[in-house]
Amino acid sequence: MARKNAFYAQSGGVTAVINASACGVLETAREHSDEIGKVYAGRNGIIGALTEDLIDTSAESEDAIAALKHTPGAAFGSCRYKLGSIQEHRAQYERLIEVFSAHDIGYFFYNGGGDSQDTAYKVSQIGADLDYPIICVGIPKTVDNDLPITDCSPGFGSAAKYLATSLREAAFDLASMSRSSTKVFALEVMGRHAGWATAACALAAEHESDAPHILLLPEVTFDQKRFLTKVEEALWRYDHCVIALSEGIKGRDGKFLSASDEDVFGHAQLGGVAPVITKLIGANLGCKCHWAVPDYLQRSARHLASMTDVEQAYAVGCAAVEFAVAGKNAVMPAIRRLSDTPYRWDIIEAPLSDVANQEKLLPADFISADGFSITKAARRYLAPLIVGDAYPPFKNGLPDYVTLQNATAPKKLNKAFAL
Amino acid sequence: MARKNAFYAQSGGVTAVINASACGVLETAREHSDEIGKVYAGRNGIIGALTEDLIDTSAESEDAIAALKHTPGAAFGSCRYKLGSIQEHRAQYERLIEVFSAHDIGYFFYNGGGDSQDTAYKVSQIGADLDYPIICVGIPKTVDNDLPITDCSPGFGSAAKYLATSLREAAFDLASMSRSSTKVFALEVMGRHAGWATAACALAAEHESDAPHILLLPEVTFDQKRFLTKVEEALWRYDHCVIALSEGIKGRDGKFLSASDEDVFGHAQLGGVAPVITKLIGANLGCKCHWAVPDYLQRSARHLASMTDVEQAYAVGCAAVEFAVAGKNAVMPAIRRLSDTPYRWDIIEAPLSDVANQEKLLPADFISADGFSITKAARRYLAPLIVGDAYPPFKNGLPDYVTLQNATAPKKLNKAFAL
Repeated sequence: MARKNAFYAQSGGVTAVINASACGVLETAREHSDEIGKVYAGRNGIIGALTEDLIDTSAESEDAIAALKHTPGAAFGSCRYKLGSIQEHRAQYERLIEVFSAHDIGYFFYNGGGDSQDTAYKVSQIGADLDYPIICVGIPKTVDNDLPITDCSPGFGSAAKYLATSLREAAFDLASMSRSSTKVFALEVMGRHAGWATAACALAAEHESDAPHILLLPEVTFDQKRFLTKVEEALWRYDHCVIALSEGIKGRDGKFLSASDEDVFGHAQLGGVAPVITKLIGANLGCKCHWAVPDYLQRSARHLASMTDVEQAYAVGCAAVEFAVAGKNAVMPAIRRLSDTPYRWDIIEAPLSDVANQEKLLPADFISADGFSITKAARRYLAPLIVGDAYPPFKNGLPDYVTLQNATAPKKLNKAFAL
Repeated sequence: MARKNAFYAQSGGVTAVINASACGVLETAREHSDEIGKVYAGRNGIIGALTEDLIDTSAESEDAIAALKHTPGAAFGSCRYKLGSIQEHRAQYERLIEVFSAHDIGYFFYNGGGDSQDTAYKVSQIGADLDYPIICVGIPKTVDNDLPITDCSPGFGSAAKYLATSLREAAFDLASMSRSSTKVFALEVMGRHAGWATAACALAAEHESDAPHILLLPEVTFDQKRFLTKVEEALWRYDHCVIALSEGIKGRDGKFLSASDEDVFGHAQLGGVAPVITKLIGANLGCKCHWAVPDYLQRSARHLASMTDVEQAYAVGCAAVEFAVAGKNAVMPAIRRLSDTPYRWDIIEAPLSDVANQEKLLPADFISADGFSITKAARRYLAPLIVGDAYPPFKNGLPDYVTLQNATAPKKLNKAFAL
């Protein structure tokens, strides 16, 4: 293929390390200047492509690009925006071709979770369906760890490290207070349907008596009576009880215990089930409870990133570009585990058609028989993902994160596009 | 004074560095073996003294004591328990004398906030009032930073560093998402009446446009209309808005916006005002909001402690013992600021009578004219307190904290005591 420009964008809920993938893409693209010209970043994901709001990354210094490796959030802006099908929303795809063509874009990199891989997959089809030659590579990312095929999703390991650390620290606090004050602490964890992040909280425990004493996983139907009995048991044994619970736990009626509005994908926007659960405990067992909802903190805590996660995020960014210049279309670099101890992995290619819109839940053999804990197999899987420190530089006592210039590339089309 | 044993205990809500003070006390006491025999730690604060539940710290290794410097929570257990007045609750004090006398205790160290310094002060009076010679030294601690006289309270600097870091990280996340999703993020911060921790969130901003865009301080009466106008203004300017709000904000009626049960001191147990505030914004401005309540995480995040804070916590522990062996009764080591830049400080003595039950609020000249931000003077005060990294050791990807043996000293009294 003749030298072409590339489009890169970030999509969906962001993570502490999605910019490390961006760093991998940009650095590797610069090494392939024979095949790849400029890399245009979409401002706010695919929205940037549709509205011709392109950032010329060639204006960024090497130092600024390198600093992405230790900066959380999405440096070019992310989005929650899903393309319709080519059949029903042909205008969207024609617009993409118009923008890509105007800017001589022949490579498309899309960095996100299941919904975003769906977008990447749809764009990969415009070569065959609409006769615009483009090489399309997805780049995995999600704190939820629910992408299939890949051993784990970049972003998850750092969230897992943050959550297990925070839970361990809060448990030291609770154990200090329980004699005359608070006896229960509940930590609410992201993960709408997949309990990976909640399960990772179990890594905080080294011994059976250690916190967390109870996990409430979204894969297990919440049973009030069994749960309260389990809390009572922990209180009787340890005089305190630490619970890690998924935002997505559901009762027997299949409804979320706490749900508010729906987001643009029709997903319920969750958060706030920890106060519901602790109120239940207070009312039934009469003890004082505390709860925490870290929300964005858990997916942006770059100050406590897992080195393993940072390395993997960077590696999938690099691999995406290597795949593209090798002419591989409609694929995603996936992490393959070669061994648990020591943790060894490499990168393979996964077809986007197998990745898009799939959700990998906790397998049954990772959940303990009573549903309130994880098995040794789960622990073996999770343990290596949080290993290694990757502190950002600090300035004046705070992490020194980079904000790019994000200069807009001159528009070549004289047309607005209504989203 | 002849060689006597010492009593040390931890009280009130714990912090990331109260054990660093314990480390200072224990290491310095071991250096003064001519004056101080054993150090008995009260299990769960003053409750340990009243119930003769004493921990023999001489059984702990030097390594274990040293590891306290990087371990959050209260290694000997804390309590929420306030002594009555000597006049009305004479039996409590007679019991203390009985226990102290049985274990040859001539030094009393009490590590806590305003309520705990009240306990220390009351115990210091038993020498004069009940003719039991004891030297009583308070040791400052509180994430709320509301103790008088001392430049700051150990525990605050680390909470401040954690909060400002977390807010900066969450702001990177929000800015990434705001184009097509969440536009408002609210971080709920501890501090019932004093807004120090909420104010510290402002350190996250380097430029005027940086988050946080609004602080809701407990010292400023909440005005819904003015607040919503301020949020609208931020949304118009930046397309997103980050708010740091105190758990203790009150409306014009003087009532907390969100309050639940009362604790044993008659204080309302707060938490959960962030969802109230974001609901208000959603209903009035129609934008998607996220909120976080870190709760215990902010006061136990030893993984992100301020080195300045760790050093001060350790230093007040050491100074307390030095004061005691110099025969100083009814005092507390206080931090005195000598200069802002570079931050220089030393330790002076503060009379417990001036410290007990006092709450130092944000002074008026630290709060901006509109009440939604802090002044340069506040920033000058706060900035040095979060400086310096003091990472704990990590093992298997998680902080390696110490749990002491906490061997109970043999009881010498044959009597229970009803609390």
